Amino acid sequence: MNNYVEQFNESLNNTKLIPIVETQLEESMRYSLSAGGKRIRPVLLLMTLSMLKTDINKGMETAKALEMIHTYSLIHDDLPAMDDDDYRRGKKTNHKLFGEATAILAGDALLTKAFELISKDKELASEEKVKLIRLLSEAAGHQGMVGGQILDMDSENKDISLDTLRKIHRYKTGALIRFSVVAACTIAKVNSKTFLLLDSFSQELGLIFQIKDDLLDIEGDFDKIGKAVGSDETNNKSTYISILGTTNTKIALEQHVNQALYLLEQLGKDYNTEELKSLTKLFANREK
Amino acid sequence: MNNYVEQFNESLNNTKLIPIVETQLEESMRYSLSAGGKRIRPVLLLMTLSMLKTDINKGMETAKALEMIHTYSLIHDDLPAMDDDDYRRGKKTNHKLFGEATAILAGDALLTKAFELISKDKELASEEKVKLIRLLSEAAGHQGMVGGQILDMDSENKDISLDTLRKIHRYKTGALIRFSVVAACTIAKVNSKTFLLLDSFSQELGLIFQIKDDLLDIEGDFDKIGKAVGSDETNNKSTYISILGTTNTKIALEQHVNQALYLLEQLGKDYNTEELKSLTKLFANREK
Repeated sequence: MNNYVEQFNESLNNTKLIPIVETQLEESMRYSLSAGGKRIRPVLLLMTLSMLKTDINKGMETAKALEMIHTYSLIHDDLPAMDDDDYRRGKKTNHKLFGEATAILAGDALLTKAFELISKDKELASEEKVKLIRLLSEAAGHQGMVGGQILDMDSENKDISLDTLRKIHRYKTGALIRFSVVAACTIAKVNSKTFLLLDSFSQELGLIFQIKDDLLDIEGDFDKIGKAVGSDETNNKSTYISILGTTNTKIALEQHVNQALYLLEQLGKDYNTEELKSLTKLFANREK
Repeated sequence: MNNYVEQFNESLNNTKLIPIVETQLEESMRYSLSAGGKRIRPVLLLMTLSMLKTDINKGMETAKALEMIHTYSLIHDDLPAMDDDDYRRGKKTNHKLFGEATAILAGDALLTKAFELISKDKELASEEKVKLIRLLSEAAGHQGMVGGQILDMDSENKDISLDTLRKIHRYKTGALIRFSVVAACTIAKVNSKTFLLLDSFSQELGLIFQIKDDLLDIEGDFDKIGKAVGSDETNNKSTYISILGTTNTKIALEQHVNQALYLLEQLGKDYNTEELKSLTKLFANREK
């Protein structure tokens, strides 16, 4: 895992953001990009590529694009008009440091830059780039992450069903996690059986990530998760815990972990799935 | 001109924005997309394509993508943290009607959708799509429109030079106008002489548009321009008029019009440039 994070961060740091004139825009973009994220989406993409015996450099620009989109979504999500958060990953949120207008524009610029990066990728053919851009825009847009975001907003202060909660997560956080794996499958040009198994695996992983997020919100440690504990309850947000209770949430988590590991097993002996299995367990047992 | 607007609007209206669940997101996207814009960027793209003897349907999806990016930039620009405008084109701004959070997300979704549309264009080959996505992301991002936006913000309440003003406009409004023409050249696969002439033409056109905008701000009619007259002065914005004075601004406008028409002449007899010449004059003489 660390190996992928290091290679990713090195490549990201070498990605130039050259301003047309000296303004705070690029500094603000860079601030949030390097604000100590776990890089789980890029790692998942690169790790899947490696498992599929494909040079991870073929996925590096796409991984950066993905992290830029994830970062932009956090910047906009933290804005006063949205979640109004002062801290993110233990650091001041973008708008707290650079002001709201710059934060909105930094988000817009990161989202735009993501597509620029893929369009300029020297490792991939045009057909692959077009496919990746299509998949990424679908995963990030109104039928993906942004759609999940609005559904989440609409559901605040409401009693929602488990089905609606799963729908929110499938789009809000699930779509980009799923893209991480599907992008690797696209780059590695896997057959349809492998694709279907890994696609299902990625959806389990998205659920695992989110369920664990809900558990950390009540059981986590501020110093580790970098935000206030219990904020979901304070904000009247429905979670797995508010709907299922803590015990059943933990059982659900275990079931999704087992299903994810089972799907990896089905890939057969051609693939070494150890890293992805460890990552799955890490998702379920992380402390932040 | 009207012919292009009609065809564009018909195609845009047929573009589905299917929600994952019923929320106001798609309604809010659609509201701003159809809020009575002049469609100058799509028209310019389609008109240039037609002049280059290329089927305008080859540029329709790109024209829609372009209008989506223009629309998203207006939605975000109108937000309280930015220009804080209540009206746009004589109608309530997006956030006034749908709330700030939805307006931010509708902007994000429109920006994302733009790249999705080009990636799914059935009229173009992958190589062309990748080129267009590269050009559009460059024109729209931190080294283009967003960069111009931040430069504009930084320059408020300051005395700036004519050079800085031109720089702001080259990026803030110029980049997308330039893309309209350059995209048509890319789709029509023109030779480098034609490309250079039309690229220069598009930059003159961008300046004409902006200088006229400044003039309309002091001489326009609220009922026609749909926003308060004199708002640049109220907002302490530097304009061509505040720097050059009205008389010299009008002379500058005429010079740029002559230069634009001259560049079109240089294309030679192979091309019928009448429509683009009329459009240039319309840019300079418009009342809104």
